[in-house]
Amino acid sequence: MDKKILGTVNSPDDVKKLDESQLNILCEEIRKEIIDTVAKNGGHLASNLGTVELTVALHRAFSSPKDAIIFDVGHQSYTHKLLTGRFDKFSTIRTEGGLSGFMRPSESEHDPFVTGHSSNSISAAYGIYRAKKISGEEGTAVAVIGDGAFTGGMAYEGLNNAGSMRGNFIIVLNDNKMSISRNVGSMSRAITRLRNRPRYHNFKFAVSRILAKIPFIGNHINNFIYNVKEFFKHIFYNSSIFESFGYNYLGPVDGHNIKEMEGLFKIAEKYNKPSVIHVITTKGKGYSYAESKPKNYHGVSPFDIETGCTPSGKATFSDIAGKTLCEIAKENEKVCAVTAAMTMGTGLTDFSTTYRNRFFDVGIAEQHAVTFSAGLAKGGMIPFFAVYSSFLQRGYDQIIHDCAIQNLPVKFLIDRAGIVGEDGESHQGVFDVSYLTSIPNMNVYSPCYFSELEEKIRLVSTDKELCAVRYPRGCELGNCNLDFSDDYTLIDNSKDIVIVTYGRIFSNVLEVSKDENVSVVKLNKIYPINKELPDILREYKRVIFIEEGIKKGGIGESLCVALNENGFVGKYEIRAIDGEFVPQASVTSSLKHYGFDIDSIKELLRNNNAR
Amino acid sequence: MDKKILGTVNSPDDVKKLDESQLNILCEEIRKEIIDTVAKNGGHLASNLGTVELTVALHRAFSSPKDAIIFDVGHQSYTHKLLTGRFDKFSTIRTEGGLSGFMRPSESEHDPFVTGHSSNSISAAYGIYRAKKISGEEGTAVAVIGDGAFTGGMAYEGLNNAGSMRGNFIIVLNDNKMSISRNVGSMSRAITRLRNRPRYHNFKFAVSRILAKIPFIGNHINNFIYNVKEFFKHIFYNSSIFESFGYNYLGPVDGHNIKEMEGLFKIAEKYNKPSVIHVITTKGKGYSYAESKPKNYHGVSPFDIETGCTPSGKATFSDIAGKTLCEIAKENEKVCAVTAAMTMGTGLTDFSTTYRNRFFDVGIAEQHAVTFSAGLAKGGMIPFFAVYSSFLQRGYDQIIHDCAIQNLPVKFLIDRAGIVGEDGESHQGVFDVSYLTSIPNMNVYSPCYFSELEEKIRLVSTDKELCAVRYPRGCELGNCNLDFSDDYTLIDNSKDIVIVTYGRIFSNVLEVSKDENVSVVKLNKIYPINKELPDILREYKRVIFIEEGIKKGGIGESLCVALNENGFVGKYEIRAIDGEFVPQASVTSSLKHYGFDIDSIKELLRNNNAR
Repeated sequence: MDKKILGTVNSPDDVKKLDESQLNILCEEIRKEIIDTVAKNGGHLASNLGTVELTVALHRAFSSPKDAIIFDVGHQSYTHKLLTGRFDKFSTIRTEGGLSGFMRPSESEHDPFVTGHSSNSISAAYGIYRAKKISGEEGTAVAVIGDGAFTGGMAYEGLNNAGSMRGNFIIVLNDNKMSISRNVGSMSRAITRLRNRPRYHNFKFAVSRILAKIPFIGNHINNFIYNVKEFFKHIFYNSSIFESFGYNYLGPVDGHNIKEMEGLFKIAEKYNKPSVIHVITTKGKGYSYAESKPKNYHGVSPFDIETGCTPSGKATFSDIAGKTLCEIAKENEKVCAVTAAMTMGTGLTDFSTTYRNRFFDVGIAEQHAVTFSAGLAKGGMIPFFAVYSSFLQRGYDQIIHDCAIQNLPVKFLIDRAGIVGEDGESHQGVFDVSYLTSIPNMNVYSPCYFSELEEKIRLVSTDKELCAVRYPRGCELGNCNLDFSDDYTLIDNSKDIVIVTYGRIFSNVLEVSKDENVSVVKLNKIYPINKELPDILREYKRVIFIEEGIKKGGIGESLCVALNENGFVGKYEIRAIDGEFVPQASVTSSLKHYGFDIDSIKELLRNNNAR
Repeated sequence: MDKKILGTVNSPDDVKKLDESQLNILCEEIRKEIIDTVAKNGGHLASNLGTVELTVALHRAFSSPKDAIIFDVGHQSYTHKLLTGRFDKFSTIRTEGGLSGFMRPSESEHDPFVTGHSSNSISAAYGIYRAKKISGEEGTAVAVIGDGAFTGGMAYEGLNNAGSMRGNFIIVLNDNKMSISRNVGSMSRAITRLRNRPRYHNFKFAVSRILAKIPFIGNHINNFIYNVKEFFKHIFYNSSIFESFGYNYLGPVDGHNIKEMEGLFKIAEKYNKPSVIHVITTKGKGYSYAESKPKNYHGVSPFDIETGCTPSGKATFSDIAGKTLCEIAKENEKVCAVTAAMTMGTGLTDFSTTYRNRFFDVGIAEQHAVTFSAGLAKGGMIPFFAVYSSFLQRGYDQIIHDCAIQNLPVKFLIDRAGIVGEDGESHQGVFDVSYLTSIPNMNVYSPCYFSELEEKIRLVSTDKELCAVRYPRGCELGNCNLDFSDDYTLIDNSKDIVIVTYGRIFSNVLEVSKDENVSVVKLNKIYPINKELPDILREYKRVIFIEEGIKKGGIGESLCVALNENGFVGKYEIRAIDGEFVPQASVTSSLKHYGFDIDSIKELLRNNNAR
């Protein structure tokens, strides 16, 4: 297929010019392009296939960038990219220097806001909307948000705030009956009830269209019918949860019927009141494997289009964490697992089925997840909250206030710690060491190997401390048989130079030490820093601290002070990520870029300007 | 009044033994005790006066500590303290070593969880509840949460999660028609609608009680009536927002009628489904000044009981921030102010009335507030989000993801930065320097004086950067006419020793420098650290960094590394708060405790063990 329609679409204006049959071809071409590209580059598949018609309808009803359209999370923004002048670059998606897999304002004026973390779209769109009103600018703002993202409290905060205003602010609820994992909670049930209500607005819309065609009379009757309908609607239907919140509720509407959606969007734009338009989509639409198992095709590695298969992967740190947690849950009935809609991503699928009673998927609700875990701990359980490093940022206050002040033994399994690769800036796990270690009572471990991860999870399951065990995305870089049971491991204490490091980078440092004249200290418990360390390190002429994370607030800075306080007079250097966001690239490429690979570390050693 | 009933109450069991007239006297005595004590010690007045009967009813219907009762925020837990064996210590509330003004598990087994930050009670109580069920323990868990706290997304996350379960988990909605500021948003309107519905459950409850007294027949008829009523209720009343969420909704009930509340609590305990009991209370009840102006008597300084007056206070940093913001809003139509239910606390009252169109109280919703501000900035506005340091912890992820990645010019006015005094651990503003400075693109200022605060707010209103201006609670410690317009101010570059500091502590350091042989560097822009500084400081024999905040991740650590990288070989010391939470005490006492007062700094200087 040569994309004869898609190839001619350079902006949303071009989408508006197409007729129905052309639109059908366009959608087919978009699906083909998405499947082909994701099969090569990896990325979000099912969510993007589900929102092709929705996105086309949005770009027909609204005028981006005058109207700001924000796709929550952004993992369904591929069609949007294809329709807003990025078709020619689409093959570069999620590669170094290429298009982002999420919305990025740096990429296009049609991306009004950064997305990546869930549930922020209403807040951002509402801010943009109010700014437009203050400035007297034209246009509206539209937040496109999934039912999964609606489990996040931030969405509710935005809904609550925007619902109290007059103006045509628009929320499109993309109801695909499923978020990243199985959808959970009360909101999900409330949405299900709405989904199953008669399609009232569709009917009204159809009647309106017919009547509008009768000259002179049509619009008057229309208005009359509109008012009567409104009245009866309030009598006969329970008001939806969104109506309780002050919104016009329109829908549910078929999310694969462009015309119907376009009509509702245009109605919503005319109200002087915010609207929620409920759109029902099918995740994975148009690719049978993804349609039947959307969970498995949410975020995918490159795969074979014919078979739907990804080359069978090696075990990951997530797998080991999940397996270990199952083992200790078998031994100890107090062990619980908590996830914020990431059962599969954090390796908890087996746990979720084997220990149903002690497994809690709380929705995309990291704040609640942290405090709920604290409640479990207070009640005598041993809760493990498995969460990606960048998403735990949402629970920072709760770690301080609800866990650390009363020193509850909550255990954090921090997945995707360090550089994560193709998902880019919003997903890098480079802040957790800084934000966790500023919190009193927090103990942090950063294993390098699978065996060490298992050992640390077992260790923290038996102590009474607030702990975090952080580990990288994917596989171990190597393996070794050293003993990591103490707070730190010292290798060859006879050199002038020592490299201090932790986490997966140790694997590279160990390789370097085989060829170079250097001692190595691996921190196993990275914080609090063991009090013997300054004594051991004080006599070195040069201490190099290598840290796969943000320099500011990292361990390297604290160790520098500890050394200085203990009379160290040698040279101290930190190699870390310094005051910048890490852009998308393969993990290997990023590690090299920041000087964490074997060659770069060797080069650093040779560049010896020790005093 | 000699507290003849209150004096005999040593535990909740004693409350259960009292008859109606004794309960009335008890409530009167409690109110007197609260008013007398808060008039002396300061504290939360209106919220505590409003919940006297509610708390008595809770302790009659439930059995603490078997049933875990968590008061959200905890600023209404004084009656609870008085009824759970803490009457004799009550005069010590909010003083050094005394009772906390919030719930503290370290204080009593009847305080199941730390409170202080809003909206966490459902999550915590639900965790405790599930732990009980897993362990097969008796008892339930009750979250008592105000309508204000319900504007926080975290409450919704908990509501959403707990609503999907079977079990007698209980939420008491304390609807006092007002949170800390005027209540805002859709949820507030939804609650208002519920409030004004016929008191259906009261009626049912009354009928039930009468029928139950007819032997044999009573309970059968009761069940019949119950079912019929349920049916009609669903026909005639719109289901409440809480019912949409899967909860039993009971109420509204008069929050000053102990018997009625007790009855509903006992009904809720018997359901195998979570309940929301809607209780209407009057803030400030029983103290006329507080009842008529509850906002002004939310959190108060010591006051005169007869007149209701607080000695007229000196201007505070909050006042200056609010005044300055008004001035620049007059000059520049792009300037907006955002608050998370802290209009008065952050000095924005004038702004809120003068620039209504550019003022946004978004509810207790810090996550939304940050991203909404980012949306405003994206739309070309200059948004200032004025927020307490400890509450901004809730918006950490949003600062990274929604502000910093796209480098939007959002301005944070961080009030209550540093030690805050009597509110204790949960309210100390000691983490913000650590958590803000780990974020790329963030610029942080920390003025010491009113004039400097004004200067910095004006400065950041004109630049295009992501900025935070942080300032302490209360008044300036002194004043001076030095120039603080550069990134740093150097005073007397001729000594061997230099003290580097920022914020209000500079005022003390300046006093010290008048008597001692020491140079001083005041950081005005504290981060990023000015690149000239290492050169200037390198030659000193001893550098003392004094920081009113957490040492880990602070500026002192980063400067140490910068100095070391620049060949500094002198002694480097950091005086800061090291790995602990700061307990309640007067600000003066805490500053002394951590060595930030003039005498302590002089002592540190004399203890000279420089190399």
